[in-house]
Amino acid sequence: MRKVAIIGAGMTPFGERWESGFRELVVEAGVKAITDARISGDKIDAGFIGTMASGRLIGQEHIGALIADYMGLNPIPVTRVEGACASGSLALRQGISAVASGMHDIVVVGGVEKMTDLGVSTVSDILGGAGDQEWELFLGATFPAIYALMAKRHMQEFGTTEEMMASVAVKNHKHGAKNKYAQFPREITMETVMASKMIADPLKVFDCSPITDGAAGVVLAPLDIAESFTKKPIEILSSAQASDAIALHSRDSMTGLKAAQVAGKKAFDMAKLAPKDINFAEVHDCFTIAEIMAIEDLGFFKKGDGGPASMEGRTTLSGEIPINTSGGLKACGHPVGATGIKQAVECVWQLRGEAEGRQVKDAHIGLSHNVGGSGATAVVHIYKNK
Amino acid sequence: MRKVAIIGAGMTPFGERWESGFRELVVEAGVKAITDARISGDKIDAGFIGTMASGRLIGQEHIGALIADYMGLNPIPVTRVEGACASGSLALRQGISAVASGMHDIVVVGGVEKMTDLGVSTVSDILGGAGDQEWELFLGATFPAIYALMAKRHMQEFGTTEEMMASVAVKNHKHGAKNKYAQFPREITMETVMASKMIADPLKVFDCSPITDGAAGVVLAPLDIAESFTKKPIEILSSAQASDAIALHSRDSMTGLKAAQVAGKKAFDMAKLAPKDINFAEVHDCFTIAEIMAIEDLGFFKKGDGGPASMEGRTTLSGEIPINTSGGLKACGHPVGATGIKQAVECVWQLRGEAEGRQVKDAHIGLSHNVGGSGATAVVHIYKNK
Repeated sequence: MRKVAIIGAGMTPFGERWESGFRELVVEAGVKAITDARISGDKIDAGFIGTMASGRLIGQEHIGALIADYMGLNPIPVTRVEGACASGSLALRQGISAVASGMHDIVVVGGVEKMTDLGVSTVSDILGGAGDQEWELFLGATFPAIYALMAKRHMQEFGTTEEMMASVAVKNHKHGAKNKYAQFPREITMETVMASKMIADPLKVFDCSPITDGAAGVVLAPLDIAESFTKKPIEILSSAQASDAIALHSRDSMTGLKAAQVAGKKAFDMAKLAPKDINFAEVHDCFTIAEIMAIEDLGFFKKGDGGPASMEGRTTLSGEIPINTSGGLKACGHPVGATGIKQAVECVWQLRGEAEGRQVKDAHIGLSHNVGGSGATAVVHIYKNK
Repeated sequence: MRKVAIIGAGMTPFGERWESGFRELVVEAGVKAITDARISGDKIDAGFIGTMASGRLIGQEHIGALIADYMGLNPIPVTRVEGACASGSLALRQGISAVASGMHDIVVVGGVEKMTDLGVSTVSDILGGAGDQEWELFLGATFPAIYALMAKRHMQEFGTTEEMMASVAVKNHKHGAKNKYAQFPREITMETVMASKMIADPLKVFDCSPITDGAAGVVLAPLDIAESFTKKPIEILSSAQASDAIALHSRDSMTGLKAAQVAGKKAFDMAKLAPKDINFAEVHDCFTIAEIMAIEDLGFFKKGDGGPASMEGRTTLSGEIPINTSGGLKACGHPVGATGIKQAVECVWQLRGEAEGRQVKDAHIGLSHNVGGSGATAVVHIYKNK
């Protein structure tokens, strides 16, 4: 199995991109990634694209071919991969597999979602398709409601408080304020979060990630030739994916995501590393409680300690393990199919020392944690600079 | 790169499966494939599933996780792949890549679509998402209309006739009549086709493949250990995919699919074979004209000779190159995401000598040709028995 490196990375600004359609967003991010890798299009052997719900959001399937066409990449193969909010990371895994196997050498991987053209309730219904629509969505359990159930249980079992959750939002907005690509690049206060409108008790609007348009892309190459393209190749040490019951009521526990625990352990084993070896991480904070569970599931903190750790500032840029330096899904935004690739892009920038204004000191090894739905899919990647 | 073999294959009956939901169809096909491979579920390392439009057809995304759950496969990774009507073959390619790279050993690959729960006009609109929705579907160009344009041009350039196209339907129904899994296992006459209702001139209803529910599955393993599972492993000699402009009006030609030509050439090169070495093929006959173009694009007949060759019976079971022994999309049915895997299943059965009633004599090497949309994606696989 060949080792794989990222040789280029780029993303669009995240936000309400009224001026750009789905196709334009992909091209914008793709061209940035390809330009960053300093390659011409004819060097590219294949592409993968993660997007969750293009059929319902924009009436278009066959996304791989659409993108090959609009990126000017014909006749190379481009394939769409879907895994709800983990679509981007699943596309990244297919790209890694293609390079690792020797099927292809230079592979572009993208993620995209165009979500703001429809009303919030329609989009919420579409996102509900990431859970078990027959047993959850049809009965009214949209995603804020499902994560609210997890939050309530976490509060009961571990004494996690609404303020601890709010501290995650405050921290991620503080990080996002330093990221020019963020949808909400502004700091907020604890009071703002606590006084904001209740969505699904105990989650308030500032506990929730937004609806976002955006795209991100990376270029992969075999590690052994990566330095012929860039002085700063980023090696992908591990790529791990796991599944769990799609409906919350069928899971062993409501206070953690087993799929994330399994994928995390596998990723650490592959990289022969432990949580203490990770210098920073991008985790899937679709809701503030999700970040608290993530930092516990990955072993950065003991189960139950994620809330206090967040409250105490241990996950800030200057803390012991900076979490979501990009601003996370919360402040940077969450175009679902793009999120996994955006996490990879942020890891690349941090490991190259290019995360202006939010650079983690001595960043050597980074991790990304991307979740599909309420945790039925989890994907963990670990990255290293040279 | 490790060589890959198919060690198990199975499919559901295709048709209007009112009694089974999407989930049940997948489980039915998956269990058949796994049972056929004589393995227990705990031997499986990963899964891939091809489905085109589950979001719009059944309101459900996150299909990989759903299937891991309902197949009892948690926590192994299962990933959904989408490429319109070529979704099944793209899933197969990801499975091959995963085994070839060494990421996984035993991989299950499935394809599924549940289409008959909605009205025909709604489904036609959804299928239009496989073309360029902004430039084709929104202007009324559904798939029968797009293929009718290709048919008209083929008639003009090469003298192809409506009777030649009809002969494809007659032949595929004759083959399908021998296939117990076929949606329409009955013979039809040339008169029936010619007198049937016009859908999009010159294509009549019997020139079109139907709307279908169904699923199919195969189990992959590294070739070097395949014989420990089955006496008749089927080696996958090549897997090739290519892209072309998504909208018909942007293509170089309307009388052939360039993506199929490119993928076919690549597949032959990988296998070090020529069209004359192929003993039989399953090709993508979503419309009768599509089969005529396919047998030309793959090099079985010269461009323009596909119509006369079909009319003369050269593609029948006893002809020089039997095409669509399963009955093809036309008679066996076309649950879009399942079609690519069903083609692989038919190739496995033929190469094992298990295609009861429709067995190709001395079948040694088979080929499958799966098309996404009107030809923006094409995938060709070549298979060999020992």
